[in-house]
Amino acid sequence: MRLPPGVNEKDFADAIRQFEEVVGLDWVFTSDEDLDTYRDGYSPYQGESEERIASAAVAPDDVEEVSKVVKIANAYRIPIYAISTGRDMGYGHCAPAYSGSVVLDLKRMDRIIEVSETNAYCVVEPGVNYFDMYRYLQEKGIRLILNLPDANWGGLIGNSLDHGNGYMLPEYRDHFGSHCGMEVVLANGEIMRTGMGAIPDSKVGPQYKYGLGPYVDGIFSQGNYGVVTKMGFWMYPMPEGYFRGTVQVPRHDDLHRLVEIMSYLLDSGISNGFSSVGAPVLRSAGVTDLEHLALIEKLDARNLSPEFEKYALRKGVAYWSGTLSFYGPVKVMKAQWEYAKEKLSAIPGATFQEGDTIRFPVGPDYFEKAGTTTGRTPCGIPTLTTFGQSIRGRNPTPTMGHVWFSPVIPRTGEAIFELNRVFGQYGAETGFPQFSPSSFRMPMDFLGNRVFLALFGFKLMADVEYNRKVRAVYREAARLGAEHGWSEYRSCASFYDDLMVDFSYNNHSLMCLHETVKDAVDPNGILSAGRYGLWPKHLRHMKDAKRS
Amino acid sequence: MRLPPGVNEKDFADAIRQFEEVVGLDWVFTSDEDLDTYRDGYSPYQGESEERIASAAVAPDDVEEVSKVVKIANAYRIPIYAISTGRDMGYGHCAPAYSGSVVLDLKRMDRIIEVSETNAYCVVEPGVNYFDMYRYLQEKGIRLILNLPDANWGGLIGNSLDHGNGYMLPEYRDHFGSHCGMEVVLANGEIMRTGMGAIPDSKVGPQYKYGLGPYVDGIFSQGNYGVVTKMGFWMYPMPEGYFRGTVQVPRHDDLHRLVEIMSYLLDSGISNGFSSVGAPVLRSAGVTDLEHLALIEKLDARNLSPEFEKYALRKGVAYWSGTLSFYGPVKVMKAQWEYAKEKLSAIPGATFQEGDTIRFPVGPDYFEKAGTTTGRTPCGIPTLTTFGQSIRGRNPTPTMGHVWFSPVIPRTGEAIFELNRVFGQYGAETGFPQFSPSSFRMPMDFLGNRVFLALFGFKLMADVEYNRKVRAVYREAARLGAEHGWSEYRSCASFYDDLMVDFSYNNHSLMCLHETVKDAVDPNGILSAGRYGLWPKHLRHMKDAKRS
Repeated sequence: MRLPPGVNEKDFADAIRQFEEVVGLDWVFTSDEDLDTYRDGYSPYQGESEERIASAAVAPDDVEEVSKVVKIANAYRIPIYAISTGRDMGYGHCAPAYSGSVVLDLKRMDRIIEVSETNAYCVVEPGVNYFDMYRYLQEKGIRLILNLPDANWGGLIGNSLDHGNGYMLPEYRDHFGSHCGMEVVLANGEIMRTGMGAIPDSKVGPQYKYGLGPYVDGIFSQGNYGVVTKMGFWMYPMPEGYFRGTVQVPRHDDLHRLVEIMSYLLDSGISNGFSSVGAPVLRSAGVTDLEHLALIEKLDARNLSPEFEKYALRKGVAYWSGTLSFYGPVKVMKAQWEYAKEKLSAIPGATFQEGDTIRFPVGPDYFEKAGTTTGRTPCGIPTLTTFGQSIRGRNPTPTMGHVWFSPVIPRTGEAIFELNRVFGQYGAETGFPQFSPSSFRMPMDFLGNRVFLALFGFKLMADVEYNRKVRAVYREAARLGAEHGWSEYRSCASFYDDLMVDFSYNNHSLMCLHETVKDAVDPNGILSAGRYGLWPKHLRHMKDAKRS
Repeated sequence: MRLPPGVNEKDFADAIRQFEEVVGLDWVFTSDEDLDTYRDGYSPYQGESEERIASAAVAPDDVEEVSKVVKIANAYRIPIYAISTGRDMGYGHCAPAYSGSVVLDLKRMDRIIEVSETNAYCVVEPGVNYFDMYRYLQEKGIRLILNLPDANWGGLIGNSLDHGNGYMLPEYRDHFGSHCGMEVVLANGEIMRTGMGAIPDSKVGPQYKYGLGPYVDGIFSQGNYGVVTKMGFWMYPMPEGYFRGTVQVPRHDDLHRLVEIMSYLLDSGISNGFSSVGAPVLRSAGVTDLEHLALIEKLDARNLSPEFEKYALRKGVAYWSGTLSFYGPVKVMKAQWEYAKEKLSAIPGATFQEGDTIRFPVGPDYFEKAGTTTGRTPCGIPTLTTFGQSIRGRNPTPTMGHVWFSPVIPRTGEAIFELNRVFGQYGAETGFPQFSPSSFRMPMDFLGNRVFLALFGFKLMADVEYNRKVRAVYREAARLGAEHGWSEYRSCASFYDDLMVDFSYNNHSLMCLHETVKDAVDPNGILSAGRYGLWPKHLRHMKDAKRS
């Protein structure tokens, strides 16, 4: 039997027996075979001794069982690591941040507690994934629509707590921002409810976020102060339709105005869905023109050649493109798009393309036709097809997973150029393909509208040397980003300490607060040690080592 | 010289001298005359010994001075109470929650640190009020518009921290929800920055809310864990226009559908501004028809007579009305309003009225014409005219202020009826005019869209007996509300303990968490003791007394 660090065999055996009494023999896992399912399938340390693995796993069925399990762990000082569905691929999956922790697996808690159609909210347990909710809405004929992230076997609670995002209106797209009310089991096993839910028989728990007094929900996001066992979420009432429009502009310097005008449209809610920018003239995919291909071969992301603009203008190829999306009544969307076109026409040479207008609820024909992530997720139809695109499925060179390097940068054209200069230069120096200056890196998303999210996917291979290189490059890139005032919005456990060290304003005063609160609310340090660099007191030397 | 409780004269004199060294002689106040300006002008205990008053006030000029003042207070264990502009009339004003505290007055810190027009945010200090920001935008010609609460000598930070609201798009209307990033001075005097701002030279502090790891900002709202010295806010880019439309429906039972359809329009962002419901047939203001007046005289809010519906149908008077507002391009607003009318026409007999379309920026003629709160605040023009309406100015029976009783109730027609049954019955039993069953109480607002906010203003008089009655009735009403699952969203210090005691789920587990965190981050208990019922350890018996 594996042992958690610092726990002796007798104590652990006692605790396991008590866990079994609480959740039943079938729901405590200690065999290597079972525990392998709690490994991070995409670990950057796969096959190395540093890979973070669980000593056991316990899967309670309800909040009372969670409370009892936590009390036992607290009594024996056993480190536990809570996961909801454990599907956060590329950002840590279901493996503990502190090797040897007992995984507290909440996926059996998959109850949809309440869905209100007229007040447009739901209350769920951590095991409820997007497919579960979709099926529930379909079966009951509830006219609410799901704001989905890309891979939908994940759960509403886990995605929200790790700051995931979707595609629809800003108030729903930010999955943590759209939550309302929590139930949490604290380190002492006490069950707590936040906001208005703290009033027994409250009528407005999932409807008013703040309650009265300090608003504590945030400390449970990406944190290790408690185990979230229920959350409320505001949902989007099914709109009449969905529509996407694209603008293309021809000149290098147009990027600045393009981003500014798109920002105005987003901040005003005139475009109310997901949006993105692209660089058609800098992309080789699908290009057949030999002159264009020759140009792209000479691309240097640090310093784009004026030839690209000349080519773009001569051939009518767009230098930049911007996609805006719209949800709502068809006539309103059309008026919004007309207004967007008016504004964007201030850029000379702007041209526009319009996507199909999709009407809700979509029929079974649409369901079949829109088989991909791009077609389904913005319409609230869950899918796993994203996994077929890059990692193993249709990928001609399948990998052993990936990690996401995802810095947040300012929402300006200049920041996009700077991103390419900084990481292009780094790529030129290191030769690492993710940062190669021979491809231009566009931010994927207007994250939470006000910033760009740049996404770099690092492949992992069945090759320890290669993966070691990935880790070193990831860390160096993160440091480089922080030097430029950028940082990750999410990461996997292997990099938590490296990233958190950059949040160092005034001698790490924010982390000092985190640690002070941690020591107070979890004095034995049993909850999710190491999550986002936050260690209990007795393990804090590990982090200090990283700092020095 | 007044003394804070538990502090001896020598220590206090030493501390005052040190405060003076930090902020200068002119900015430390100890005379009764000066300290009178820190009394709650609307205190429900005015003229009684229980009125909460300051022992001194200190007004630092910048964050470094705040840090030094807090360090001194911490060394001498002097209770301090931070205020920003101290204008929260009806919710506590500038008086400390714990009598004898030293007020830490931040109104000299009135710097507008940054305003980004293209990225639509600002960063301000606590002393910046809505007039300051309006002037700044006007002077610089910045095309951003201010999302205002009703009384605008208050500040952006204070209003946000106390969960204030405005009139525009949901993402701006919720003033705490629209903030992004904080600077906080902790009880040990350390200066901390949250979110991405914790990265030195961060480029995205006011643009991405969450940072990495636990999101702590919420604990500083309505709380006493630190002194907020800077905050970022997202602002609304100036839209083309603003427009308000009203629907009227004739039947008693129409309220249910009216609220449902309006909710759909709000949750969908189709109506993106402030909205409200009203009951024209139940209101006497402006009524001249004698039959109608006779009916209103017989009004019983607990059980509305069918005569009202008969009268409404026969005379074409509306039973209920709903107001929706819209911001954006004029063509889009028109399409949204057309769609809203289509949806609302499902209620037989629905009629519609349209307000003027106001175009931004409004000219000086509008500024003069729209002299009232209703005209100015939704257009981002600050005003104090709200004070002329009820308290002293044009009020034929001027009072000594008021306190707000403001329960949050579910967003349903049924909840409105229940509110009237419950408080009407209470009014019938107690004879207290605020709850008289002879007037029907409509919630004022769709607070944060998902709930109704009911507002009861209690007058205060230069009459100790009367004010004592007000307090007793307020407390009883709050208890009655909590029994029905409702609670306040904000209050004044006199009622903090009474209200927080209702947030009692699982033996007050939320308050236990608050207290655990309090003891950890402010071990000497110097910061804003008693705010929202949260007392430092050495004063906690006061709260326990309330609980028992």
